[in-house]
Amino acid sequence: MYKINQTTKRELAKVQKNITKELASEKIVQDIYEYIFQSEGKKTRALVSLLSSKTSKIARASNSIIKPVNNKQRIQLASIIELLHTATLVHDDVIDESSLRRGEKSVNQVWTNSYSVLMGDFIYSKAFILMMTLDHPLILKELAAATNDIARGEIIQLNLFENSLSLELNDLLKVSYLKTGRLFEASAKTGAMLANFSPADVKNFGLMGKNLGIAFQIQDDILDYESLKTDTGKPSLQDFQEGKITFPLFYALQNCRKIDKNFLLKHLGSKTLTMSAKSKVFDLVKETATVKLADTLLKKYLSQASKNLEKLNHHSCYDEMLNLIMFSSQRRS
Amino acid sequence: MYKINQTTKRELAKVQKNITKELASEKIVQDIYEYIFQSEGKKTRALVSLLSSKTSKIARASNSIIKPVNNKQRIQLASIIELLHTATLVHDDVIDESSLRRGEKSVNQVWTNSYSVLMGDFIYSKAFILMMTLDHPLILKELAAATNDIARGEIIQLNLFENSLSLELNDLLKVSYLKTGRLFEASAKTGAMLANFSPADVKNFGLMGKNLGIAFQIQDDILDYESLKTDTGKPSLQDFQEGKITFPLFYALQNCRKIDKNFLLKHLGSKTLTMSAKSKVFDLVKETATVKLADTLLKKYLSQASKNLEKLNHHSCYDEMLNLIMFSSQRRS
Repeated sequence: MYKINQTTKRELAKVQKNITKELASEKIVQDIYEYIFQSEGKKTRALVSLLSSKTSKIARASNSIIKPVNNKQRIQLASIIELLHTATLVHDDVIDESSLRRGEKSVNQVWTNSYSVLMGDFIYSKAFILMMTLDHPLILKELAAATNDIARGEIIQLNLFENSLSLELNDLLKVSYLKTGRLFEASAKTGAMLANFSPADVKNFGLMGKNLGIAFQIQDDILDYESLKTDTGKPSLQDFQEGKITFPLFYALQNCRKIDKNFLLKHLGSKTLTMSAKSKVFDLVKETATVKLADTLLKKYLSQASKNLEKLNHHSCYDEMLNLIMFSSQRRS
Repeated sequence: MYKINQTTKRELAKVQKNITKELASEKIVQDIYEYIFQSEGKKTRALVSLLSSKTSKIARASNSIIKPVNNKQRIQLASIIELLHTATLVHDDVIDESSLRRGEKSVNQVWTNSYSVLMGDFIYSKAFILMMTLDHPLILKELAAATNDIARGEIIQLNLFENSLSLELNDLLKVSYLKTGRLFEASAKTGAMLANFSPADVKNFGLMGKNLGIAFQIQDDILDYESLKTDTGKPSLQDFQEGKITFPLFYALQNCRKIDKNFLLKHLGSKTLTMSAKSKVFDLVKETATVKLADTLLKKYLSQASKNLEKLNHHSCYDEMLNLIMFSSQRRS
């Protein structure tokens, strides 16, 4: 289990406080905003940003042009990243017609889809407003590009699943990069930019973030088939019932018998699966070969992220970041 | 009828070209993007921006610190504003469950709501990416704040109509400012900022834009009750059927007999009005007092915009802008 450093834990608490401190003057806006942020997420992207922007004495000594990083700005950047991520989640719940988010009813459930669409826009633009305080055009550019890529990735994903029969592993990897890896990449990269690290280091932080993010998505996909009980804050087989071909299902479809493949494709996207159909889907996907293939893919990206991190071993975040990478494959929610 | 200056017309054509020139590498993204921009809107906000950023010899002579404005940047800013506006329209169609936009089927109709949500996000973030090329933090700040205010305004609007009985004129004016006036204000203000006008002139451009934008919304509201035939590119009584209390309906509710008020409130928000119910709604709202009150309000804001413009009569855009303001009350679509 990932043990968070006490300083970092305090910093993440500051991120939460920073995000929720400003009040909207209208009750309805404030109510929804508070509702969204009352259930704290893992803040993994904010964590990646906080770790990447950490300056150490060693790093300072190794590069004389490095200016000390302003801690308020580090918290601000991590907050912006958490806001961007939350905006995508609020919109995702509309797209996936989800009723639960982080174990609580989603905004579209408590209010309506319309409120979710607008509240997502509100949070996106709030993130851009806060970005201006960083006074760092390259960071802004990277975060605007990442936001655009996330939307692009999700559009491609929607379209992929309408052409599910011709799906290739590379399609899934591309979508995983755009919708998840891209913001991890931007979190690490902009953290390193804020800390004024060298271009080579910024690049490595970016690569590490990208690979960690893709691994994060693979693990998310695996967790959807983890158990038939709901203990991850979202219903089991949610991806399957939303019609999404994720990594485990992709491998299952490639490796199972034709009759089973037909069974899976027939039930994919059904919101009203019987318990016995669920069980069968679950058993087919949890078949040994599939589990092993998904696990191998996950390990490949985590190992790549570790390699990227090795080039950053002169940074003070090294131990904590390695810990985060190592923990990723054990994450259960 | 508003006659557009030939130079400005060419500039608006450049805006259209600029918006559509970049291609997304994925067919689905490109297809939806092209579909959205194939039906050209009026581009009123882009027009306000182009006019406000126009430098004239007179303006230059009157203020020696003014640098010549880069025309490419003027087109870029107007394009960004058009993108932001279009993103709100794409999301609005989800919120209003509209099937038509600019006389064509809306994105949610041709594709699905999910595509609309994501494509709106894609266009928003594209606007922020393009903003970076302006290299003008104050413009970025203003546009981020405007985007946030638009979302806030629409959330308040959704909520208002759930409390329609206690609605006051000021509530409607606030919503009209936030959802429409705010981007007009930002269009004029950032245009003037780009042209390096004095703070006093920037302020007046902003006020003029704000008042023109509120007037624009009032006129939009009036047009919804203009005719029972569909000739404005959107179905008649669309606002009424979406449950929106707009200015004409507000005045009608205030001035009609109790029995008629009950009739209006009973049918407000119904998507399945009979032709005879439509006719009655139409007649009640088009009653003389209501029409006059809405018209007076419209004229009040247009007159205020003209007054703001008078303080800018040393600007080369003066004639064209005055023309635009004067034309506003005759607009039919």
